[in-house]
Amino acid sequence: MKQSQIFTKTRKEAPKDEVSKNAQLLIRAGFINKEMAGVYAYLPLGLRTIKKIENIIREEMNAIGGQELVMTALQEKATWEPSGRWSDEVVDSWFKTELKNGTKLGLGFTHEEPMTLMMRNHIRSFRDMPVSVYQFQTKFRNEARAKSGIMRAREFVMKDLYSFCRDLAEHEVFYEKAKQAYVNIFNRLGIGEKTYITYASGGSFSKYSHEFQTISPAGEDLIHICDKCHIAVNKEIMADLNQSCPVCGGKDLHEEKAIEVGNIFTLGEKFSSALELTFLNEKGEKKNVFMGSYGIGPARSMGTIVENLSDDKGIVWPESVAPFKVHLIEIGGDKDVVRQKTEEVYNMLSKAGIEVLWDDRDLRPGEKFADADLIGLPFRVVVSEKMITAKTLEIKSRRVENSEIIKEEELLSKLA
Amino acid sequence: MKQSQIFTKTRKEAPKDEVSKNAQLLIRAGFINKEMAGVYAYLPLGLRTIKKIENIIREEMNAIGGQELVMTALQEKATWEPSGRWSDEVVDSWFKTELKNGTKLGLGFTHEEPMTLMMRNHIRSFRDMPVSVYQFQTKFRNEARAKSGIMRAREFVMKDLYSFCRDLAEHEVFYEKAKQAYVNIFNRLGIGEKTYITYASGGSFSKYSHEFQTISPAGEDLIHICDKCHIAVNKEIMADLNQSCPVCGGKDLHEEKAIEVGNIFTLGEKFSSALELTFLNEKGEKKNVFMGSYGIGPARSMGTIVENLSDDKGIVWPESVAPFKVHLIEIGGDKDVVRQKTEEVYNMLSKAGIEVLWDDRDLRPGEKFADADLIGLPFRVVVSEKMITAKTLEIKSRRVENSEIIKEEELLSKLA
Repeated sequence: MKQSQIFTKTRKEAPKDEVSKNAQLLIRAGFINKEMAGVYAYLPLGLRTIKKIENIIREEMNAIGGQELVMTALQEKATWEPSGRWSDEVVDSWFKTELKNGTKLGLGFTHEEPMTLMMRNHIRSFRDMPVSVYQFQTKFRNEARAKSGIMRAREFVMKDLYSFCRDLAEHEVFYEKAKQAYVNIFNRLGIGEKTYITYASGGSFSKYSHEFQTISPAGEDLIHICDKCHIAVNKEIMADLNQSCPVCGGKDLHEEKAIEVGNIFTLGEKFSSALELTFLNEKGEKKNVFMGSYGIGPARSMGTIVENLSDDKGIVWPESVAPFKVHLIEIGGDKDVVRQKTEEVYNMLSKAGIEVLWDDRDLRPGEKFADADLIGLPFRVVVSEKMITAKTLEIKSRRVENSEIIKEEELLSKLA
Repeated sequence: MKQSQIFTKTRKEAPKDEVSKNAQLLIRAGFINKEMAGVYAYLPLGLRTIKKIENIIREEMNAIGGQELVMTALQEKATWEPSGRWSDEVVDSWFKTELKNGTKLGLGFTHEEPMTLMMRNHIRSFRDMPVSVYQFQTKFRNEARAKSGIMRAREFVMKDLYSFCRDLAEHEVFYEKAKQAYVNIFNRLGIGEKTYITYASGGSFSKYSHEFQTISPAGEDLIHICDKCHIAVNKEIMADLNQSCPVCGGKDLHEEKAIEVGNIFTLGEKFSSALELTFLNEKGEKKNVFMGSYGIGPARSMGTIVENLSDDKGIVWPESVAPFKVHLIEIGGDKDVVRQKTEEVYNMLSKAGIEVLWDDRDLRPGEKFADADLIGLPFRVVVSEKMITAKTLEIKSRRVENSEIIKEEELLSKLA
């Protein structure tokens, strides 16, 4: 794609009221627009990025048998009263609104209740399980403070999956599969190395839930890491564990700031009993369905990537989620020979299935390089008149300082 | 995909409070779930269908240079006051809510104002235009009555595109392109023949706007059709036109009920002047940007397809939007020979790039056929022991009464 055809402009300064590094960089690079505190629009570059993140998550959810659907934001009282979660005293993050006739509605902050109700139309027998459904759907949370950019927004797309099993045993099989899928996701997103499966407080039906926590100075959580077991424990439950690792029992844990990028939770019969989601088992007995929930916020992952992988010049996208792989920069594009060669390189890369952002704008080289660093595509490739004469190209990985002069014919193998 | 792996079940009856034909059929076939009046979740089959509709729209918007982004539902007063549209007396379809600190927010029912404000960061000079941006984004409209199923929902995804031009002349070029893109879209969705470009009331900057109206008994609008010019006029402006066709001047128009499936509108400087979206022209003078807006509701298109193309047995999807092209039905799948042959046919079709729903469920043939008619995929292909012996298959188009016995090797060409 030609950069002149993307309407967004980069900017030197973020809005003064924006305090988070992720939103500052993403706004400056033209990925997002700040609508108000905690509410961000996704502009073309940002939308491309978050769709890539969503697709990685989607592939992993499909691989464990998840079926995609999409529920609604508008929620009615009757759906949430049986679980006790309609009350603003129980749930302090509701946005509430109302119909013209005065009927109060809420904007969904999660979807256990409506999912459970919906499933009453489709689960009747043990033969209908295990089943898992998921969605990418916009949640609304009335955060008192929204100072973490896209990592804690008041409106954000969440991937939430819900599993429905006949009993704990069947649930545990699925839960382990989902845990592994989450590991795969964060590896593919390029933040796997710093992401720890973290023991956190459970519920009536399980001792623990599991969070996925990525070490970061921007983290709002504190976790205690056991290097031996490569797991972590949320600080909140360290006292219950007598300050020891729940796997090896050792006490040699160190504290880190971390961002909760995902969580998986055994719900058990909490919602199925409240909302009467039952089935007939092998013996013809009526039983409550055994549920689990599994969440990831694609935007929080995107924010975590920016927080952890950027440098003082801008963002450094992992290839898997970069809006384009190559930033192709023509220097002196007003000359036919340069324009022609750049187009040739562009076509060659496109034919090889490589996504290219072609900076065809009439700007000085320094401005183009600064924008390339800010936007943060994995590779920068430069075409100039001098290089055309020498039949060379300049290539630079966003992760390293120095560029390299290569022969034209080496380009594809360098990018492989 | 195997039908046993889709969790939704068909049902004989729609919910008693559902009065619209489109929602009744879509609920019975398992495409959607009714959350409350005017609020529907999209289950796997429904999501596949609406994503296909969205992709057709996306392709046509990209073809005219539209750049995709996504704005937010949460809206603040300051964005909407300059145009006068914050007021509930001016706009009667707002859902309003509030932050914890009492700040009032609205849920976007459209996005002219935030789009205009956002563009202030990106349009400075005449060189930055023409530019057009679009989104698939969830709108909220506080409809007093919501009795038309997915055709008039309180929460629904809308494709809204906004164009930004330097003047009327540049705008008109884009407007005509967008009009043609809309014609393409409705043709591709299978409702082109009954869809008329319809003259409707304009604004300060143009005599008319244009609606795309599809003739249907379920229509809420009345249009007057000029068969000679193949255009229509919204009844609301017939008096202003002295009851005559705005193209040929003739008076031979006939009235029909119709569904407004899209509309395009010249906004002119209405929003750019209110929100100060300006640019410097060739002479260095500051001018207001000249805008247009272009809307289509994918769900309303989906509802229109169901209303117009269904029969008393169920839905009849056009191939372009059907969740799968072929419903492959095995009869006697408990026998190895049948299961094996069905798998063979399934693999052959999949390899040819044809999307197949394989009914592998343990049900009587009559139940499978009834479900196939209700779900409405374009082709039904049956495998049975008798046919295996004869090396034949049964194929039936959903649009015709009779099935046909063909040789196995004819299948691909029949589906081409």
